[in-house]
Amino acid sequence: MNPGSDFQTSPDAGLFVHTTLKAWEIQVNRMNAFFESMSDDDLMREVAPGRNSGIYLLGHLTAVNDAIMPLLGLGQKLYPHLEKIFISSPDKSGLEFPTAKELRRCWNEVNEGLLEHFVRLEPAEWLAKHAAVSADDFAKEPHRNRLNVVISRTTHMHYHLGQLILLRV
Amino acid sequence: MNPGSDFQTSPDAGLFVHTTLKAWEIQVNRMNAFFESMSDDDLMREVAPGRNSGIYLLGHLTAVNDAIMPLLGLGQKLYPHLEKIFISSPDKSGLEFPTAKELRRCWNEVNEGLLEHFVRLEPAEWLAKHAAVSADDFAKEPHRNRLNVVISRTTHMHYHLGQLILLRV
Repeated sequence: MNPGSDFQTSPDAGLFVHTTLKAWEIQVNRMNAFFESMSDDDLMREVAPGRNSGIYLLGHLTAVNDAIMPLLGLGQKLYPHLEKIFISSPDKSGLEFPTAKELRRCWNEVNEGLLEHFVRLEPAEWLAKHAAVSADDFAKEPHRNRLNVVISRTTHMHYHLGQLILLRV
Repeated sequence: MNPGSDFQTSPDAGLFVHTTLKAWEIQVNRMNAFFESMSDDDLMREVAPGRNSGIYLLGHLTAVNDAIMPLLGLGQKLYPHLEKIFISSPDKSGLEFPTAKELRRCWNEVNEGLLEHFVRLEPAEWLAKHAAVSADDFAKEPHRNRLNVVISRTTHMHYHLGQLILLRV
């Protein structure tokens, strides 16, 4: 299925994209409000006994969102060094973490950069395949497109917000 | 913005809908696999000390998904009595819960019924407003459509799965 160019001018195709991007944007704002409500000390605590710390989840979410850039073919990661610490390694890896202040800055820059790119894509471009799916698989599963990445990373933020909220006493 | 009928025959409009519904379906399957991996006794535990129990979250997710039916104008709730116990009231309300076995059955029936309805809707119908938004607000915020409800309930499941996963020892 080849995304046609005929609906690039259709407001309805744009509305499908807008609906998804709005869900992304609202969720990023919700995460921002949460992180702003937490002190750096709050983030050092674990969400439950023996589980991930707030700061690890902040780093993890930043690294995962940063990886959206190359996945959608929009550019390079801003902070590639976060992957080893916060994706490939678990919380208690012994690796040195950036400070909460530094991670908050990375988090904001990653999401601001993404939104700038997102709003520039045309509807048909959203239906194109992303970098982690082969052409053969994409032909069989056309839902594995760029927009799907935005939906899955929106849900990923919710998944960890459900845990982070447990830091609230 | 009035969803046009001109793209009801366009495979691309259908692909936008398919992408979102696929994310819903994958998440329901993931939740099912999680609940099946948990014994009824497992579900009686709290996800973290003093927090919601697994059985409360199962009831809560069932009641919230059940409410999608009237919200999208697709029909009545299957289990309206769950709202008072699992949405209006917190976990330790003292209200009697259905058994885990009963809630598992409700959960499956609610989601099976929803998917049956979802796949029948045309793309343009997904862009129509849902029942909880006024016509005035919808005119200003056309992203508050039926498809948005599916996205937000998909993320709602992720939010609580992030907590439920803490039941795993």
